[in-house]
Amino acid sequence: MTTVIDASLNEFVDACRRTIGAQYVSTDSQQNAAYLTDWRRRFTGAACAVMKPGSTEEVAAIVRLCNQFKVPVVPQGGNTGLVLGSIPDASGSAVVLSLTRLNKIRSVDPVNNTMTVESGCILQDIQQAAAAADRLFPLSLASEGSCTIGGNLSANAGGTAVLRYGNARELCLGLEVVTPQGDVWNGLRGLRKDNTGYDLRDLYIGAEGTLGIITGAVLKLFPQPKAGRTAMLALRSADDALRLLTLAQGKCHATLTGFELMSEYCLTLVTKHFPQIRMPFKEAHAQYVLLELSDSESEEHANMLLENLVGDALQQDIVQDAIVATSITQSKALWLVREHIPTAQAAEGKNIKHDIALPVSVIGDFIRHTDQLIQKTFAGARMVTFGHLGDGNLHYNIAHPEHQTEDSFLMQQASINRIVHDSVHSFGGSISAEHGIGVLKREEILRYKSEIEMNLMRTIKYALDPLNLMNPGKVI
Amino acid sequence: MTTVIDASLNEFVDACRRTIGAQYVSTDSQQNAAYLTDWRRRFTGAACAVMKPGSTEEVAAIVRLCNQFKVPVVPQGGNTGLVLGSIPDASGSAVVLSLTRLNKIRSVDPVNNTMTVESGCILQDIQQAAAAADRLFPLSLASEGSCTIGGNLSANAGGTAVLRYGNARELCLGLEVVTPQGDVWNGLRGLRKDNTGYDLRDLYIGAEGTLGIITGAVLKLFPQPKAGRTAMLALRSADDALRLLTLAQGKCHATLTGFELMSEYCLTLVTKHFPQIRMPFKEAHAQYVLLELSDSESEEHANMLLENLVGDALQQDIVQDAIVATSITQSKALWLVREHIPTAQAAEGKNIKHDIALPVSVIGDFIRHTDQLIQKTFAGARMVTFGHLGDGNLHYNIAHPEHQTEDSFLMQQASINRIVHDSVHSFGGSISAEHGIGVLKREEILRYKSEIEMNLMRTIKYALDPLNLMNPGKVI
Repeated sequence: MTTVIDASLNEFVDACRRTIGAQYVSTDSQQNAAYLTDWRRRFTGAACAVMKPGSTEEVAAIVRLCNQFKVPVVPQGGNTGLVLGSIPDASGSAVVLSLTRLNKIRSVDPVNNTMTVESGCILQDIQQAAAAADRLFPLSLASEGSCTIGGNLSANAGGTAVLRYGNARELCLGLEVVTPQGDVWNGLRGLRKDNTGYDLRDLYIGAEGTLGIITGAVLKLFPQPKAGRTAMLALRSADDALRLLTLAQGKCHATLTGFELMSEYCLTLVTKHFPQIRMPFKEAHAQYVLLELSDSESEEHANMLLENLVGDALQQDIVQDAIVATSITQSKALWLVREHIPTAQAAEGKNIKHDIALPVSVIGDFIRHTDQLIQKTFAGARMVTFGHLGDGNLHYNIAHPEHQTEDSFLMQQASINRIVHDSVHSFGGSISAEHGIGVLKREEILRYKSEIEMNLMRTIKYALDPLNLMNPGKVI
Repeated sequence: MTTVIDASLNEFVDACRRTIGAQYVSTDSQQNAAYLTDWRRRFTGAACAVMKPGSTEEVAAIVRLCNQFKVPVVPQGGNTGLVLGSIPDASGSAVVLSLTRLNKIRSVDPVNNTMTVESGCILQDIQQAAAAADRLFPLSLASEGSCTIGGNLSANAGGTAVLRYGNARELCLGLEVVTPQGDVWNGLRGLRKDNTGYDLRDLYIGAEGTLGIITGAVLKLFPQPKAGRTAMLALRSADDALRLLTLAQGKCHATLTGFELMSEYCLTLVTKHFPQIRMPFKEAHAQYVLLELSDSESEEHANMLLENLVGDALQQDIVQDAIVATSITQSKALWLVREHIPTAQAAEGKNIKHDIALPVSVIGDFIRHTDQLIQKTFAGARMVTFGHLGDGNLHYNIAHPEHQTEDSFLMQQASINRIVHDSVHSFGGSISAEHGIGVLKREEILRYKSEIEMNLMRTIKYALDPLNLMNPGKVI
């Protein structure tokens, strides 16, 4: 039986070599290693080959061969995903289809405020090409130097500017997709309005490669802001942070581009592991908000807006103390504090992470309620809570109590996830805000999504991909 | 045969009466007339009954009966659609399911900036409920006093604030939908981020009721702007209007909420049929732009932004003349000019309308090229071109030449549509920007959409609605 499969697989791999060139089809396990292990190095899968087609037509040709030989396809961009969505399982039956050679920026149209790119383009290259045309492509995330736009779209990436510009989905006007049958759907439209049928674009976005392979996209561009301003504000509670958010949205509208929450404990960890990073406040406060304005007018106008907001917030006793950056250096220093939270918590030891979203209005209640539930069962567990409060997106991470070892705490991950995710669900939230489902949360969503919703998703999946060849085992 | 059908239909109607109450099931042809004729009174269909369920569960129960008796369903909101999407065909086999009794605003959450509504709510009532909570629901269109949010979402309505806030799709975070099988999908999530599977929401939005019936929605709210400013600018050409758009976007960013183009001929028609409306300029110019700013700061700031923009545009010779409204009365007077174009052209006689979208950057070329094509074959045809230039959306309407009768010109509609739509397609545009497909453009999209795209749409349709009971004959 194994021999039959192998023979067929060999025939398949040979056909692929003839189609896209032998140098782009690798069965060398050492060479393939990087494509088989996930970003956080938690799992290594196996593949019959790693392929790097050089064009949309070559992607389609490979997928047609996959159909002919019934070989599953795992599409892969920068392989920076956090839910094991872009690596194959351990069976070795699948092919990894790397899109990294599809890295051309096909065109930039500054008047239409659009850019047409291939899906293997690195996010940072896209940002730079936009800037070269005096435009902003606002999608921005930690892995932007490695991740590709195809992966960003397949995962509907979030990042730090969602409050103003939306998720990856909102930043895309059109797509080019290779279907599970190996056809090319050309939906590369640069239109703000197009009501001519079903929204296929948004179906492929966020589908994590299970419905087709994104090979190209038309992205939205924006005018570049003229000035940025950063402030760090000290507050009594997450509830006050919500009051501040409402105040800031009312006073700054679209100028408000970032609104990050972090608890005192997060800053304690940063100080402990990165003593060189200066803490903005001398006294400790329960919560902090890092606030970013991107102004379209001038430095002066940005200053005026920010001073006005901070003044009102202090006067209304929403904010206890405030640091306003008066230079780019100071602004970067404030962001450094926020950016070092993930590395500081990693330095402190492994923890149990939750990438969750909630209606913004219930975040204070959620934190209070869930902290209590956790402390009841896992007394002393350390809550490392921070995130994109403006989007209702928290990184609700939990580190082991001082009295317990890291390993014995991690053994309790399932019960901790249960407490947190049940609580998220009871507050009307989502257990995956911006990371997706992949393999890691595939079982978990079954608990929270209705059978009706799961069946709708399954119906769509099996209608579009009846052989279940597109990234099988992911999402559903 | 007819008798059998009738007997079965009678049984069905009786079952519906028992389910939602006899007073909400009408087979009275006079009482039903308004539900069977489209907004523009171009077509009257027939239905076995008009039903008005009072809750989501009643909608689901009716749909289950429709399944049992194989009765097609035509969902209907305010019945203000322009493409015959919300009325039944002439066969009389379908039931019209009016959502107008589902008109409760379930909740408003000003901190989360969301509102949960039933789909039969009138758009204007939603705008008012948002305003009562000191928030803005920005969707706004001519029929807002009659249309329902369910219809707006099913058609992915556009309107006058798309430039800043997006179409109906971008204004919706979650949905409640009755599936073709009569199940209720509760997707009423008020989340800015939720990456837990396929985007069912955006599939139902814009599907014109062919995949399910929207019964509820979570809508996005925004802070209310503090000041509005209007200006009318006179220009040499549509190309200059594009230059002005780029300048305005760069200088005003999100403050720019409206950017309407209209040709001199449009204003001539307004003057002819509404002599009481004062024209803003004494001299004639080729094109005009009506520009709206919605400022989040103050009247003074809005004035400053607008004066700055107009000053630069005059200095750069983009704009030939400018009128800046200095009061709400003056602002309304400028909008009156724009708003009277559709009625003025109707007073002038019937014309051939095209609701098209183009990449913004090619609009000047498109108008020049297509005007020439039309004049070559239909010399003297009068071009009534206006629209939402900021979104690339033109109402490219054509009236009969003076030397030809209206009726003989209208006979040539098919060949005129062919010229216009072929040209739209060759410029990468869409033949339906904001009105949808319905029945009217169902054949037309077959010419412009690839067989691959049509098949993807058909696959989804028949997977979700295998009996083809949901608004059959519409879209695909």
